[in-house]
Amino acid sequence: MTTETILKSHPAAGADVSDLAAVIDDIAACVQACTVCADACLHEDSVDHLRKCIRTDLDCADVCNATLRVLSRQGSGDPEILAALLSACIAACEACGAECESHADMHEHCRACAEACRRCAASCRRLLETLG
Amino acid sequence: MTTETILKSHPAAGADVSDLAAVIDDIAACVQACTVCADACLHEDSVDHLRKCIRTDLDCADVCNATLRVLSRQGSGDPEILAALLSACIAACEACGAECESHADMHEHCRACAEACRRCAASCRRLLETLG
Amino acid sequence: MTTETILKSHPAAGADVSDLAAVIDDIAACVQACTVCADACLHEDSVDHLRKCIRTDLDCADVCNATLRVLSRQGSGDPEILAALLSACIAACEACGAECESHADMHEHCRACAEACRRCAASCRRLLETLG
Amino acid sequence: MTTETILKSHPAAGADVSDLAAVIDDIAACVQACTVCADACLHEDSVDHLRKCIRTDLDCADVCNATLRVLSRQGSGDPEILAALLSACIAACEACGAECESHADMHEHCRACAEACRRCAASCRRLLETLG
Repeated sequence: MTTETILKSHPAAGADVSDLAAVIDDIAACVQACTVCADACLHEDSVDHLRKCIRTDLDCADVCNATLRVLSRQGSGDPEILAALLSACIAACEACGAECESHADMHEHCRACAEACRRCAASCRRLLETLG
Repeated sequence: MTTETILKSHPAAGADVSDLAAVIDDIAACVQACTVCADACLHEDSVDHLRKCIRTDLDCADVCNATLRVLSRQGSGDPEILAALLSACIAACEACGAECESHADMHEHCRACAEACRRCAASCRRLLETLG
Repeated sequence: MTTETILKSHPAAGADVSDLAAVIDDIAACVQACTVCADACLHEDSVDHLRKCIRTDLDCADVCNATLRVLSRQGSGDPEILAALLSACIAACEACGAECESHADMHEHCRACAEACRRCAASCRRLLETLG
Repeated sequence: MTTETILKSHPAAGADVSDLAAVIDDIAACVQACTVCADACLHEDSVDHLRKCIRTDLDCADVCNATLRVLSRQGSGDPEILAALLSACIAACEACGAECESHADMHEHCRACAEACRRCAASCRRLLETLG
């Protein structure tokens, strides 16, 4: 079952449901990447140098998860809350993406997580722009 | 990026990483289906008859989400916690799946959510058996 | 054990730890009030008129919960993420507080939740101002 | 505002609401202690020796948080889900409490977190016994 299938079944689903599904999938992938990257960093010999990375991973997962949940509620949400939350999500993804990128040569999980963060930030930014 | 890609990048990733990725994807899809179904039920004219469905959706999303996070941490977790959590997850998916199924003829979101719950319960049960 | 006790035990705890503990307690109380209010609304005879209240309760609980978790990590967080998240939290508390307030005469849980939201918004706003 | 106040305002609040409030407060305190302890461990010079502690803190916070949310919904929940979830919560608190206890002489946050875990486990066990 795809995200689009379940979103389409909502009585308030709009015409842009496939765009919404794409954003939701990108955010969900980012939550997953950050959760795994934090735990992977914790198991590296160089954990001492990965403290900040673990921290930004955990923060990013938390902010993205809240955004994912609010966004999944399609019916008559508050645009102001959503806009502020998307801004927080973009900030968290940028901070985490930059930190992970700096370890990308050493750790594949950091490289993959940086990619997931960039993708999520770009999706959230596009959605934020449509909110006007 | 797939769940398997990010899981494989973990220093403690095992040989069964593609099985784990499949379970994680099923749980994540169930969280998403329950979150959307709860909000969709809230928008139906018949919300009065969907109270229990909303409740089981919210409980199921919460239990599945905790299971998803614990399971995503591949390194040296506690098998007892995981087993108890998978049992809770199976119970929540069965209760939610049964409730959603009873509205499946009326609401496509309930039908889709029941399917996601059944799939998630079956995946968690298979994983639980391997912990034996 | 108080929130201040556990916060003080952090190696990066600052001089303002009792202020931080007060904000955290207000956010935690708001999460709890919103979670209970959503479920209470779902059980009222007038659930039909409380749909928006349930929705704002769930959104507010999610945004506050993410804020609570990020804020509880005292060591070297990103001020930009925190500021954006506090803004989202204030917006969610204001929306939820206003909606709950409109049912305060009918439902004690809405009255209590509105109070928790106002208190949380005020605490977050004070903290946001100190971030400059 | 106390947890008991908001719980009492629920239309399905039972006679045992002050007992329920006490359990909820113990679980919420454990979530908070584990979240802070994980971040505090991450900042210790000896982070290398605290990897397992961070892991059990994160798992315990996740399981306790799901339990807290399900328990806060007073209306007609499923006793089987709650029992399985309380068992998972007890297992997580015992694992985290034992790990934190082993660092209690070195780190005040571990000592405080071990205490919060023990208290939470004891409260959940008492509640589980009443479920029959």
